[in-house]
Amino acid sequence: MFEPLGLKVKTETGKTIFEIARENGVAIRSECGGKGNCGKCKIIVRNQEAVGKPTDAEKKHLTESENRSGLRLACLTTPQKSLVLVIPRESRITTRKIQLFGLEKHVKAKPNVKKFYLSLEKPTLEDAKPDLERLIDELKKQRDLESVRLEIDHQTLKGLPQVLRNANWKVTATILGKRKIITVESRNTLNRVLGLAIDVGTSKIVTYVVDLTTGRVLGTGAIENPQMMYGEDIISRITYTAKDGKYLKILQLMVVNGTNEAIIEGCREANVNPENIYEAVFVGNTAMHHLFFGIQPKYVSLSPYTPTLGRSICVKAGELGVKINPNAMVCSLPIIGGFIGPDAVADVLATGMHEADETSLLLDIGTNTEVFLGNKNLMQCCSCASGPAFEGIHVKHGVKAVDGAIEKVRIAPSSLNVEYKTINDAPPVGICGTGMIDAAAEMLKNGIINTHGIFVKTLKNPRLKKIEGQKCFVLVPKEKSGTKKEIVITQKDINEIQLAKAAIFTGCSVLMKRMGLTADDIGKVFIAGAFGTSMNPENAKIIGLVPDVQTEKIEFVGNTAIIGAKATLVSTDMREKTNEIVKKVVYVELAAESSFMSEFSKALFIPHKELERFPSVERILERG
Amino acid sequence: MFEPLGLKVKTETGKTIFEIARENGVAIRSECGGKGNCGKCKIIVRNQEAVGKPTDAEKKHLTESENRSGLRLACLTTPQKSLVLVIPRESRITTRKIQLFGLEKHVKAKPNVKKFYLSLEKPTLEDAKPDLERLIDELKKQRDLESVRLEIDHQTLKGLPQVLRNANWKVTATILGKRKIITVESRNTLNRVLGLAIDVGTSKIVTYVVDLTTGRVLGTGAIENPQMMYGEDIISRITYTAKDGKYLKILQLMVVNGTNEAIIEGCREANVNPENIYEAVFVGNTAMHHLFFGIQPKYVSLSPYTPTLGRSICVKAGELGVKINPNAMVCSLPIIGGFIGPDAVADVLATGMHEADETSLLLDIGTNTEVFLGNKNLMQCCSCASGPAFEGIHVKHGVKAVDGAIEKVRIAPSSLNVEYKTINDAPPVGICGTGMIDAAAEMLKNGIINTHGIFVKTLKNPRLKKIEGQKCFVLVPKEKSGTKKEIVITQKDINEIQLAKAAIFTGCSVLMKRMGLTADDIGKVFIAGAFGTSMNPENAKIIGLVPDVQTEKIEFVGNTAIIGAKATLVSTDMREKTNEIVKKVVYVELAAESSFMSEFSKALFIPHKELERFPSVERILERG
Repeated sequence: MFEPLGLKVKTETGKTIFEIARENGVAIRSECGGKGNCGKCKIIVRNQEAVGKPTDAEKKHLTESENRSGLRLACLTTPQKSLVLVIPRESRITTRKIQLFGLEKHVKAKPNVKKFYLSLEKPTLEDAKPDLERLIDELKKQRDLESVRLEIDHQTLKGLPQVLRNANWKVTATILGKRKIITVESRNTLNRVLGLAIDVGTSKIVTYVVDLTTGRVLGTGAIENPQMMYGEDIISRITYTAKDGKYLKILQLMVVNGTNEAIIEGCREANVNPENIYEAVFVGNTAMHHLFFGIQPKYVSLSPYTPTLGRSICVKAGELGVKINPNAMVCSLPIIGGFIGPDAVADVLATGMHEADETSLLLDIGTNTEVFLGNKNLMQCCSCASGPAFEGIHVKHGVKAVDGAIEKVRIAPSSLNVEYKTINDAPPVGICGTGMIDAAAEMLKNGIINTHGIFVKTLKNPRLKKIEGQKCFVLVPKEKSGTKKEIVITQKDINEIQLAKAAIFTGCSVLMKRMGLTADDIGKVFIAGAFGTSMNPENAKIIGLVPDVQTEKIEFVGNTAIIGAKATLVSTDMREKTNEIVKKVVYVELAAESSFMSEFSKALFIPHKELERFPSVERILERG
Repeated sequence: MFEPLGLKVKTETGKTIFEIARENGVAIRSECGGKGNCGKCKIIVRNQEAVGKPTDAEKKHLTESENRSGLRLACLTTPQKSLVLVIPRESRITTRKIQLFGLEKHVKAKPNVKKFYLSLEKPTLEDAKPDLERLIDELKKQRDLESVRLEIDHQTLKGLPQVLRNANWKVTATILGKRKIITVESRNTLNRVLGLAIDVGTSKIVTYVVDLTTGRVLGTGAIENPQMMYGEDIISRITYTAKDGKYLKILQLMVVNGTNEAIIEGCREANVNPENIYEAVFVGNTAMHHLFFGIQPKYVSLSPYTPTLGRSICVKAGELGVKINPNAMVCSLPIIGGFIGPDAVADVLATGMHEADETSLLLDIGTNTEVFLGNKNLMQCCSCASGPAFEGIHVKHGVKAVDGAIEKVRIAPSSLNVEYKTINDAPPVGICGTGMIDAAAEMLKNGIINTHGIFVKTLKNPRLKKIEGQKCFVLVPKEKSGTKKEIVITQKDINEIQLAKAAIFTGCSVLMKRMGLTADDIGKVFIAGAFGTSMNPENAKIIGLVPDVQTEKIEFVGNTAIIGAKATLVSTDMREKTNEIVKKVVYVELAAESSFMSEFSKALFIPHKELERFPSVERILERG
């Protein structure tokens, strides 16, 4: 028996606490994946007699006082009998700066959920009409419900006779979609009509708790996706689910548990009861969508990358394990393709590009980057395997957008002195995505690297060094670093950035060519996703991440996925629009495009092999 | 731990095996209700060390050899640790002669369930349409499905990607109501489209396994309702559920478990897999309906006897625990009132009286007797508390329709010698309902009782005796009896029969008066329910159970509840008609009728206080 977070589980003997936690959807922090190397999975075992003494390997990671307080490493401790354990805050999956907000336009509230307060006549021998018919007949007197055919949720029906009589026949009924009675509550609860927007990303989960009568966000929640215990990238998680059916259940449990934590956080901020949330809208990428709804995502990752479904689905919260009103429905927005999920549909909706006269380009930058190009008449989209470089992965001193991450960089000409800004002005610990874009652009402008992305051999400066046989540029010297080690950009880091930006630009370029458009035809570039306003749009152009448009056309729109989800939660008109978007957008499979490889290889240059496609950058480089 | 019927349960210590079984919905026979008096709850404990030695009280009921084979009484044995037990056949709830069939008219098959065999194109990079859309697009090419909006069950969706690929894209989809895809099966399974009709009575459960393409019954199942462990009558069961929420769950579990046994029996006879049953239609009285669907039935038994709902409902089999295809729907027929349930609606449908020009009277005789009177223009109905006398309860030697039950009685004039017939010609063990009707009629005709139902004092005959201070008439002498005791009809028995028949006739009489009809206006009398063709219609008139119509107008229609249920299973047109019946029929609450008491007191006479209302009986009595 094993009881973390109020959870009690049975397990086989011989497994480590880390393994048991993982199989039961409980997240414990780890960088090494449970190999005993990182020392991050510290937990407190309440009854030490249930586990053996710590080994030397374990002791190495624990201070004397930690040892005394019962701290152990989850991945090196195997229970011998029932135990009770606590996961300390520092061993939970850490929260980075998660993009909570985004570009938001006003949406007129027209929710799918409506409440009606009713005062029913008590039955008599002369009028012994059944309870449900009594309720429905009264509902049919309400505006908008006159001619609808109402159903009732079976769980609600079961409780109906008792609720009606306990409430002395004064009740509030919650109706979903002018069709289904999902709850009947005692007395007047008209002031509590809440909805939930859920954005599940590969690495983070964001929730909005929304007042459906006003459309106001009352509280937000954000958490790292606990599935990260099964791999930072989506492919390794899918590999697990394909291996054995039980992993699909575990990974679903993990993402649902994580969502529930974000719901609790949002409800606490809003000071509301999750029971009063009657509908949720889900967005996320296609693989996360499948995992969340318990659908095998294997085929999304195998050619021809077919999702199990495209349309939106609604499933009862109770059935999914989502801890809001159990009769509430959790509805996903529709899917465009295996790599263009409901989150991307929400992005489009939030920007409104599908209704605009002018042509817009939308990039939602992440491990996969979704690209949309078009206007109200025609839209195409594709997905680019941009990789996790901008998330700090595979970059020597790369970090996520945590406190102390370098998010802005300026290099002074000649001296090559570096000015930088870190998140929350904490001592620098590494460099995050926007910092990398700045660094690469500044290094190009200052002749540290050339358009091939190669360190220029002839340049001499104390900041240019060799580490482990590799050229690098020192951003932060040891003495100023939060890690007490210097923070550098290596030749390999530049190559990683080139691969990432080339993948993204190739997506833009292929769509532009298919649609016969040049950069001048683009009226607006929306950049969505984790990159906030801290990205320097000028530098994004300089490295050739985005087409060479006027800088003022570039708009950072933040987390448009959750904003779009919220819009569809607040307004059924907006929800209907997502179906129109899916119908309108043509999905382009890059792998099937003949021009893909040549476009990609040209885009590996900084900014591009065909410099004439980046005239503004060409001018800057000529000046420099 | 406790494992009967392949079931494993945990329980509190200190409870008897009988109590544990009852709480877990497992039926063990008992007449005393677990008080240690009847000795019927014999079970086999496999590991005797888990229970103490039998007490003297227990030994009293067990033979030496039973003792040796590990037999124990469930109500006197308390487990001290985990045990494994077997319930021998004789300790299961015994099966009596259950009316399985009834009047059946041909119904053209037009089922709600349809299967379609599809051969789908495999997805490619050029055609990466999602799995569900691929399936639905192909379904939409099928006849009748062109313009429908299809949904899919979430459980089926979860398995869809695997099923499609395992089946190499050749699958059979099952569609319910031209609306919902409930299963997708590998390869061609068009020859397996089954439905289930369920009739749950207070004392018995009957199932029909039906081929939906032909409408043919392939197998039938019948079992005593295991809820009888909580009381023979419905009121004591309702009292349990009102006491504590857990009893509602237990009683639901019991009726569902019982239904599952009847399903297994039916499927075994039909040689089919319950997984291929895709829809079930439920009928039963209102209280049983509520218990089956997990709805608190308390208010059905309290004035003003309001059911929780009137309309038909459909619930997933998996949610109810009904062991057919878990995605199948179990749909009830609609309810007219607290005492006129879906079974009565099915009765009406099966007789077709709601579409007839001539006026019919329909009686479904049971502990509650439902009475319908009318024709295609106008129908009224009521429910009569006729009590369980005709089921053998509260009658000295009353028995249910088991082997050896006396079902026919003739008394020779003057000699008063008795001719009788028993069920399956077994030695007589008691008298069942039809036998009682015969006995009472014959006793009246032969002047043994008078029209008040009183034994005539002046009559002398060896068969007339006093037992325990009560007059009685000996039907079977000791030496001919299967029980080695004489079988008699007592004064009190006659009074019980009077009460029962008066309740039923009062229902008929009140409806006839309300509608301004006399016996001559009635073209047909349908007698449904457990009384089969063995009831003597002449005698039913003589005791005043039914109005004095020409005998040939009386038709015994058997179990029309299950026949009606089957008709609605086979044809959606028939199902629609049940809604019309509910709309058309006016429910009359007898308790609210001013004439009720006077009508009832007059009907207590045999046949009736107003003998002119039974002219044919008057003539017989005058002759006699």
